[in-house]
Amino acid sequence: MTHINENFLELQGSYLFSEIAKRRTKYIADNPNAEIISLGIGDVTRALPNAVIQAMHSAVDELAAPHSFRGYGPEQGYDFLINAIIEHDYKTRGVELAGNEIFVSDGSKCDVGNIQEIFSADSIIAVQDPVYPVYVDTNVMAGRSGKYNEAAKRFDNIVYLDCTAENAFKPSLPKDNVDLIYLCYPNNPTGMTLTKDELKVWVDYARANKCVILFDSAYEAFIQEADVPHSIYEVEGAREVAIEFRSFSKTAGFTGVRCAYTVVPRELKGFDASGNDVLINDLWNRRHTTKFNGVSYVTQRGAAAIYSPEGKEQIASLVRSYMSNAETIRDGLASLGLDVYGGVNAPYLWLKTPQGLDSWTFFDKLLTEANIVGTPGVGFGQSGQGYFRLTAFGSRENTEKAVERIRKLAL
Amino acid sequence: MTHINENFLELQGSYLFSEIAKRRTKYIADNPNAEIISLGIGDVTRALPNAVIQAMHSAVDELAAPHSFRGYGPEQGYDFLINAIIEHDYKTRGVELAGNEIFVSDGSKCDVGNIQEIFSADSIIAVQDPVYPVYVDTNVMAGRSGKYNEAAKRFDNIVYLDCTAENAFKPSLPKDNVDLIYLCYPNNPTGMTLTKDELKVWVDYARANKCVILFDSAYEAFIQEADVPHSIYEVEGAREVAIEFRSFSKTAGFTGVRCAYTVVPRELKGFDASGNDVLINDLWNRRHTTKFNGVSYVTQRGAAAIYSPEGKEQIASLVRSYMSNAETIRDGLASLGLDVYGGVNAPYLWLKTPQGLDSWTFFDKLLTEANIVGTPGVGFGQSGQGYFRLTAFGSRENTEKAVERIRKLAL
Repeated sequence: MTHINENFLELQGSYLFSEIAKRRTKYIADNPNAEIISLGIGDVTRALPNAVIQAMHSAVDELAAPHSFRGYGPEQGYDFLINAIIEHDYKTRGVELAGNEIFVSDGSKCDVGNIQEIFSADSIIAVQDPVYPVYVDTNVMAGRSGKYNEAAKRFDNIVYLDCTAENAFKPSLPKDNVDLIYLCYPNNPTGMTLTKDELKVWVDYARANKCVILFDSAYEAFIQEADVPHSIYEVEGAREVAIEFRSFSKTAGFTGVRCAYTVVPRELKGFDASGNDVLINDLWNRRHTTKFNGVSYVTQRGAAAIYSPEGKEQIASLVRSYMSNAETIRDGLASLGLDVYGGVNAPYLWLKTPQGLDSWTFFDKLLTEANIVGTPGVGFGQSGQGYFRLTAFGSRENTEKAVERIRKLAL
Repeated sequence: MTHINENFLELQGSYLFSEIAKRRTKYIADNPNAEIISLGIGDVTRALPNAVIQAMHSAVDELAAPHSFRGYGPEQGYDFLINAIIEHDYKTRGVELAGNEIFVSDGSKCDVGNIQEIFSADSIIAVQDPVYPVYVDTNVMAGRSGKYNEAAKRFDNIVYLDCTAENAFKPSLPKDNVDLIYLCYPNNPTGMTLTKDELKVWVDYARANKCVILFDSAYEAFIQEADVPHSIYEVEGAREVAIEFRSFSKTAGFTGVRCAYTVVPRELKGFDASGNDVLINDLWNRRHTTKFNGVSYVTQRGAAAIYSPEGKEQIASLVRSYMSNAETIRDGLASLGLDVYGGVNAPYLWLKTPQGLDSWTFFDKLLTEANIVGTPGVGFGQSGQGYFRLTAFGSRENTEKAVERIRKLAL
């Protein structure tokens, strides 16, 4: 008799985006002429850079001829891509990595979802609140969350690190013992960052407590300020305690093309029940090669092209266009006296809802009075209540129009 | 303190292919002029079909323009591909499937590796022996295998279904209670198949015992004989008990392009601890959408192109070329009086090693006396001892040359 993994029954419904879609659909049905602008999506909208397009065409042509055809590649990724990553994403920042410390994958969602498999089932995890839901959901599936507390709207065994305006969205160190700490910087959803000194506090804590930091830096390309680290490995000692997740999704418009990578330094150790060291890199390599078969060759060639001089300029231009939207939203809302965070080193803006409205009431107000769809902050966790996320991924025209519409609301 | 998943420590080294590489490398170092022919690889070698190439170029061009750009697609795959799969792979065989029963992924290795996550950690699994190692390894990682018994060279808690010449490579039903049964047909490594009536015995068993069959049919495209089912759903009642895994890897040369799909019928149920029904489709949908972000758009367009009239003819031609190799090897070895199996409905040939040699001794003999690299059967499990796998994926010329070389050995 086949029994299921009962942990799945503890998962909370993916309420957020389905509820958004429901309210939006109902509004459109009632108001068929409404011209809705979405600043809710976390997806890119601009075309792929030309350097990427050319590289992908060439790669497709290689697969058309027997002498240049490629079948299975290395599960960890081709050297041409790994070497480009090491050279351009890390060496330029003073970080030395070896080829066997990089694992190319088809997406950071997969990597941040799968990484928990190599750790003990009774590991205590800490997450920021508000938070990208995948960190929590994948640990619920693995049985680490404990029961869901309906009153608290939180899982019993997860340690939540509150990020609100009161602490400038910089969480305090955990009071309880934790084993795995998910940190996301630049942060989704708040758009906020840590300086190198602030990040060092976490690295030092992890070293002192033998924790592992799972550092999601999918939005690294949007960092504009000089004192914000691009990689956690810019912090001394981080190689002993941190796994870093990077993605081409937002950096280069790859959300539909699928490429990311994960860095697992050879210094990083976990412990078996007897307290013996085990190299985390070895465990992840075994997981990656057993359950994954490498990224599409065409995609890997496209990803490598962003490191060419033309590619670099083209992705810089992509980032500039999104960040110009971010500035428009940020300045526009700030000029209305609203409290708006993020948008300086990230494509996300995190708005304190005006008039003390809760997140969903403000969602309805924006939808019905300005025909703008955003994302209620409470959908990312209890500390997101009273906040609202807007994204910089819309078109220039729609972004400007949206700010004008908000200006006309009496907020 | 971060504890690791100790189940990983039970994994047996991926001994097989590293040992092959070691012996091959040593032989070449000692014999630098030897002209080695590899009939060991399970990877395609022919260029991608032209219909696929054209579709991938078009898809790349779509991503180059803002109006046709696509970001995140549905995690389960685009309708254009799902509908083509339903229409051409299933309706033509009298099998009706709905769109929400198909999950497009980046590889069958991922799917057959990940599927166990949705089942209880104490599920008893049954595997054929010899077997594709991923079924076993992913269950070891999840803690279902028990300890490895060095003497038996098997895991204590896994039920092994022996497949040898004595039972015509058709395993008996398990004597013990099992929950999940991995079946692979056409089989890797033996190349053997079941008829519809033979497969029905397994479906009936699973229905009677409330088991789930995990049916890997990655080599379906190579079936030539009329009474061999292409899908387990051709068998009555299979929708209640079977998950089917299909791949474009061998069918269309996609090992480097990455596309596969998994079918989870809506009738398929598992049970919670209280014995209540749970839809397996819902669990897999939740797993797939939480830990995966869809297959590359370019790849999905390429995959859909194999269902066009030109695409169908081109992949049929690919399959014919590999199956012509299979026939050459099969007839060549049989004419020498060797016992050779498979190669009729699969690109794999499974040879009983002559003179009672063990698998590795025969490997060394072929390598040193004929400069041919194959795969020792024992590498796939204890019931593979005394067998040897050859593949039909080499070039025409090398395949013929290899058979001639074997002919000259006094076997």
